[in-house]
Formats: sequence, C-alpha cells, structure tokens
Amino acid sequence: MTRARPALSGRGRHPAVVIATGFGAAVLIGTLLLGTPLATTDGDASHWLTALFTATSAVCVTGLVVVDTAAHWSVFGEVVIVALMQVGGLGIMTLATLIMVVLSGRLGLRARLSAQMETKSVVAADLRQVLRKVVVFSLVCEAAVAVVLTVRFLTGYAEPLGRAAYLGVFHAVSAFNNAGFALWPDNLMRFVTDPWICLTIALAVIAGGLGFPVVFELLRTWRRPRRWTLLTRITVGLSTLLLGAGTLAFLLAEWRNPATMGPLSDSGKLLSAFFTAVMPRSGGFNSLDIGQLTSPSLLVTDVLMFIGGGSAGTAGGIKVTTFGFLLFIVWSELRGENQVNIGHRRLPAATQRQALSISLLGLLLVTFATWLMLVITPHSLDRVLFEVISAFATNGLSTGITADTPLAGHVVLSLLMFIGRIGPLTLGSALALKQRTRRYELPEERVILG
Amino acid sequence: MTRARPALSGRGRHPAVVIATGFGAAVLIGTLLLGTPLATTDGDASHWLTALFTATSAVCVTGLVVVDTAAHWSVFGEVVIVALMQVGGLGIMTLATLIMVVLSGRLGLRARLSAQMETKSVVAADLRQVLRKVVVFSLVCEAAVAVVLTVRFLTGYAEPLGRAAYLGVFHAVSAFNNAGFALWPDNLMRFVTDPWICLTIALAVIAGGLGFPVVFELLRTWRRPRRWTLLTRITVGLSTLLLGAGTLAFLLAEWRNPATMGPLSDSGKLLSAFFTAVMPRSGGFNSLDIGQLTSPSLLVTDVLMFIGGGSAGTAGGIKVTTFGFLLFIVWSELRGENQVNIGHRRLPAATQRQALSISLLGLLLVTFATWLMLVITPHSLDRVLFEVISAFATNGLSTGITADTPLAGHVVLSLLMFIGRIGPLTLGSALALKQRTRRYELPEERVILG
Ligand SMILES: [K+]
Ligand SMILES: [K+]
Repeated sequence: MTRARPALSGRGRHPAVVIATGFGAAVLIGTLLLGTPLATTDGDASHWLTALFTATSAVCVTGLVVVDTAAHWSVFGEVVIVALMQVGGLGIMTLATLIMVVLSGRLGLRARLSAQMETKSVVAADLRQVLRKVVVFSLVCEAAVAVVLTVRFLTGYAEPLGRAAYLGVFHAVSAFNNAGFALWPDNLMRFVTDPWICLTIALAVIAGGLGFPVVFELLRTWRRPRRWTLLTRITVGLSTLLLGAGTLAFLLAEWRNPATMGPLSDSGKLLSAFFTAVMPRSGGFNSLDIGQLTSPSLLVTDVLMFIGGGSAGTAGGIKVTTFGFLLFIVWSELRGENQVNIGHRRLPAATQRQALSISLLGLLLVTFATWLMLVITPHSLDRVLFEVISAFATNGLSTGITADTPLAGHVVLSLLMFIGRIGPLTLGSALALKQRTRRYELPEERVILG
Repeated sequence: MTRARPALSGRGRHPAVVIATGFGAAVLIGTLLLGTPLATTDGDASHWLTALFTATSAVCVTGLVVVDTAAHWSVFGEVVIVALMQVGGLGIMTLATLIMVVLSGRLGLRARLSAQMETKSVVAADLRQVLRKVVVFSLVCEAAVAVVLTVRFLTGYAEPLGRAAYLGVFHAVSAFNNAGFALWPDNLMRFVTDPWICLTIALAVIAGGLGFPVVFELLRTWRRPRRWTLLTRITVGLSTLLLGAGTLAFLLAEWRNPATMGPLSDSGKLLSAFFTAVMPRSGGFNSLDIGQLTSPSLLVTDVLMFIGGGSAGTAGGIKVTTFGFLLFIVWSELRGENQVNIGHRRLPAATQRQALSISLLGLLLVTFATWLMLVITPHSLDRVLFEVISAFATNGLSTGITADTPLAGHVVLSLLMFIGRIGPLTLGSALALKQRTRRYELPEERVILG
C-alpha cells in the first residue's frame, strides 16, 4: 500500500498533476506514433494537427474525427488508436477509482463517500485488488462483446475470420470505453436495423459508462434493488429515465423524417431511437445520420450529452450523479427542507457545492467555447453547440462540421476534449484535497489506506 | 402596520397567491380593454389572443409584440398599454420590496437579508414609507426622463408639443419599467446615433433595473463605495462587468456587419454597442436590427438576457445577484473553503440553494420551452432560443419570429412571460415562507413590521 501513497498524495504529486501528466503523455506518444508515415494508408505522414486531434480524441475516448478512420489510417494506425482508447479508458476508470478510494480513507470523507459507494466493500478493500477488478472487468466485458461482434460479422456479413475478429475487437474496445471510433465512413449507419450489432454495442457502452462502483455493486446485488446504495440508485434510476425520455423524444421528432427514421420499419425505428438515446451517454456511435436530425432531436441530444454517464466510468459529461444531486437540492428547497436528504442520507454541503461547481463551470466553458466557435467558423448555432458539447462531454457524435472547420476550431475542440475528460476528475480530487488542509488537525491514524 | 399583515401573511393569503392573482387580474383587465374596438386604429376588435399577448407583455413589462404597436393600437389602446406597464412595473417593485421587508422581519431572516439590504435603514423603516418611496422614486425618474425625451423630440425632430410630450411620457414609462414598448415600427433604430435619446433611455432602463434597494442605497451613499452593502456591490460590480463585456463583444462581432453597425461612424458604433449591451438587462429596446445580428452577438445577448438585472427592480431574468452568488459559491469551492464568504459575511446555505434553484429551474424551463418551440415552429435554434429567453427574462428583444409564429407559439411565449415575471418572486417568497414552518418556535416578538 505504501507504494500507492507517494504517487497519489506525496509532495508535488497532486492527483491533478498526475492525471494531467498521464493523459498528456499518452496524447503525446499517440501523436508521435500517428504522425509517422507508417500510420497512414497512403504512406505520407499526417499533418501534425490531424495526429494530435486523433490522439487526443482516442485517449480522451471522445471519437470526434477530422479524417475517416478506416480510409486514412493504416492497420498500424488503427492499432495505435485501439491502444490509446484502451489506455485512456482504463486510465480514467482506475484513476477515478483510485482517487475515490484514497480520498475516502485519507480525508475523513467516509460520510460523503458512503453516499457514493458501499463503505465496507470498497474502502476496506485492498487498493490493488480494486484496480485488478477494474482491469479484469474491462477485459472480460471487451472480450465478450468482441466475441458476439466477431460471430455476427462472420455469419451475418460474410467477413473472413481474421477480419471479423479484428473488427470485433476494435469495436468492442471502442464501445466499452465509450470512445465511438468506428471503421466505416458512415460509423454504424449500415447496421441501423441489425439488433445484434446495435444492442451489443449499446450494452457495452452502458456497461462502461455506468462507472465501476455501480457496475461492481450491480454484479453483486442486482437481485436486491432495495439494498442498492444511493450512488447506484441515482445512476440506474436517472439513466433509465433519461434513456426512456430520449427514446420517446427521438421517436416523436424523427418518425417521419425521410433522412433518418422515415424509411425504417416500426421495429427499426424503435431500435434506432433506443440506440440514438444510448449514445449521448457518451458512446458516440451513430446509426442515424446525425447531420440530418431535426432541431428538437439535436437539442435533446445536447442535453443528454451534457449530462453524460455515470461517475468513475468511461463516460463523459457532468455525470448523471451530479445532475441528480442538483435535482435533489432543488427538490429539497422547493419542499422547504433545511437540509438535502436523499433516501436516509444527508447530502453534505461540500458535495452540493461540488455538484454546482462542476455543472456551472461546464456550462460556462461550453457557452464560451460555443461563442468562440461561432466567431471562427461559419456554422450555425445548433451545429456549433452540438459539436462543442460533444467535445466537452467526450462524446464524439457529430453533425459533420468537425471535419469542415478551420484549424483554430480543431485546437478549440482538442482543448475541450482534454478539459472535458480530465477536468471533472482533477477538479473533484483538487477540491477534495483542498478541503484536506482545513481538516489538518485530523489524526493521521485515521488514514486507512496509507 | 397591522393593516399590512393580513394581506401578506394571513391565512390563505400566501404571497404567491397574492402575486399571481394581482398580475392575473391586471392581465385580464388589460385583455378586456385591449379587446374592445376602441383600442385599435381600424376600429375592429383584435383577436383575443392578440389582446391577451399584448396585455401580458405590457403587465409583465416584457415588450414582445405580435402587432406593430403604433399601427395597430389607437391612442386609447396605447394609453391602456402605458397604464399596464406602469401597474406591472410598480407592482413588481412594491411587491418585491414588501416581501423582502415582511420576510426579513417575520422569519428571522435578518442575517440573510443583511446580505441583501441595509438592515437598519430598510427593515426598521415604516412599511408604507418604503412603498411611498418606491412610488415617488418611480414617478420622479419617469418625469425626468419624459422631460428630456420631450425636449429632444420637440427640438431635434420638430414634433409638435403635444405629440412630443406624449412620446416622451410613453417611452419614459416604457424605459423606466424595463418594458421596451416603442411607438415606431423599427423600435428605436431611427435614433441609433442620437445620444440624447439613446443614453436617456439607457439610463432609465438601468435605474429601473438596478432594483429599489440598490438605487435607494446608491442615492444615499454613492460617494462612499466602501460603505456599500453587499447587494449593492454585487449588483453594481457585476452589472458594470457585464455591460463592459457586452459592449466589447458587440463591437467585436458587429463592427463590419453591413446590416447593423457597419454603416455607422466610430462614435455611432460605440453608442449602439453600449445601447445594445444595456438592453439585455431587460430593457428590450433596440437601436440595431436584432434579426441581423451575427450569431456570436445573439449568443452573448442570450446569456445577458438570462442573467437579467437587479433584484426587486423592474428587470427580469434570474438576476445578477443570483448569478453573482453562484459565482461566489464556485469560487469558494475552488479555493477549498468550507463556507461561502462574501466580503465579511457568510452566505447562508439556504440562500445558496435558493440561487441554485432559481437558476436551474430557469434553465430547465428555457430548455423545455425551446424544445417545444422547435417542435411547433419552423425556425432555427438561434432564433427560437433567443425568443424564448427574451420571453422568460421579460426582455422583449426579438429577432422577429414572435410575429411570425403559430398561435400555439404565442401561448407558449405568453406563459413564459408570465412565469418569468412572477416565478422568481413567488418562488423566492414561497421558499422563504416554507422555511418559516421550520422556525415556528421563534418568538413572535421578533416580528418588527407586524
Ligand atoms: K465517446
Ligand atoms: K422588457
């Protein structure tokens, strides 16, 4: 355990620095590798900004692209992208989990985290065991998804075994890590009515995006919802609600749209609406042409993307937990309560302020970036807002303007992806560590994990 | 004093009910009067929805119109509109002030209000005296503005005295009450380079929109900014900041726009940028063609309108105070403070939750209404969002789609104006009164104003 301490809490190794350095290094290495002639199909080195944008998009598991993935990148380039997605996704899950665990022991924040994870099981657990569980869980999920996809590509689309397995693994990694990279120029639009592909990928996106603490708890207690912790209840409840509302909203607005659902059968409409409602969590795949969605659908997607997925998972956005806390605060205030109680637990004032801070800073960032993109590109508000939220929430859905934006726009979107990915994580840990100085008088013996 | 008590705190006379009933009654009477043939220039009775929309817009001092004010309404109709604006504006100022005063005495919320108004001067003051001051201040301001405008119309535009005085009074009332109704089809675009008209109206809008407590304090202590209360500091500071940032943003985005500032001289550009930056507070007049603004300018206006003006004034929006509190909460959290301190005062947790509630409910309402308007109208997101925020913030700026929207859209906008006007007021009082039940044990003797 002592090995873990200096890395996370030693002098000069503030988690924020560790996270930013780690992701920055991965982006840098990715840029160098993708910048070689070996990485492209035509053997010419990519523009350095193309390499940087793609590496950032892969490490931050965003999925926005400035070039068509399969056409531009060679097999080597694609393997680099898979590796970056895997590193980025695992990095997020393990770092988030590490920080939650270390902070819960180190800062006397057990009261707070007990509202977020089951104290006994996680806090008391061996740190390495937790990390091992994250890695094993990721690899098992990805393997299962890869097998299903491979079989489907093999039997349903007559791909040779090697190619089918390659496609299976690439999209399994991309889906579980909520990355959204695909090896077809139309993303997954050709599979819009194929439930094997769509449902498998949707499930992988959901599993990766729920967040490790929730998934772990669900695996143990899925039969007994009454024993779920608050984190799991809020995440599962709100996710289901948003998923249902999104599906309905897309059905309503796209049913007769000849460029999207119009030509599909009723079951195809339903499948595509569900798939489109899952992806804003931050999967970022699309089976409908996002650029052809009606404006109400774009707005619904904006909102869903901004909220994003679960905490400590591969999803982006402000997280359903944060959004849920905000709703509970408002609800308590409307009821005239003096405290915010969820279930039988009190939401600490610090957590309330943290939820507010993450949301408001996200909103200000998105608003400012949208203004900037409106100034430097000729595109309309609905498309610019969509692309900005997609980058901030590391989502990767696109109306198509990312590829059609001046270089300055690519820099803005790259920064948004990076901030959107490491921002909430570093902000959360930084906020919690700052508090630590106020609690300096706490006896060091209270450190469980040190 | 006992006469005031039952009206505001007696059984069954919850402030929320008083406010909603009062505004509803004013809208109803206005609709009836504007619905008569006497109110139109052509002598045909207006469609009832036109009368209802205009009455709502006038009482809620919004200024959105579905018909050209001067062309459609007769002098009688215009006088009704002036009366409704005056009733609406005074109603807001007096009700807000009343509620602040009554609550501060009744609920032991002095600690909270001391962050909002100077305890000694206002809480201890006689209730009727406060109300008299509001009315006197309003009328004096309006008279001064009317005189300046009248002289200018008389000397600068060769209007006959009667007509000049009529125009002066109409626009003085419209400006001070932040209503934004004007008697020219282009609103104030013809005066874009006239500093007499533009600056006078801008000052009237600012004076009305700062809010009575701030204006009252400024009148007493404007020479000694160090003695200002927190409410005044936040309101004045943030207003100045938003005004400056807005002016710069409009200069940047419109300087070369041939449809707006392009043809103007440099001083004309500066004047129009300042005027355009003042109006989102919720004046709602325009000297540039809002429909021709670039998309960055529309977005900046959206943000400024949503924030709005000062508390307990004629302005709409979530209010600069609310926005300022949110910024302070985030700032405190980033600094790792356990409490939110502004100046040397602590921001109570209840006030923090109230600021969050008003903002989040406003945001959810605007988002939902935008989605609804996107579904029922053919207009694009930038214009729909602009019109929805304008209605919610009772602002009245328009890109022109209000007149060009199906009846269902008019109903949505009417509801938004009404909710946007009375919502924060009733919400604020309702929240505070709810808390009262929790503090029931407080000795009745603490009631100062009863
Ligand atoms: K993604
Ligand atoms: K107005």
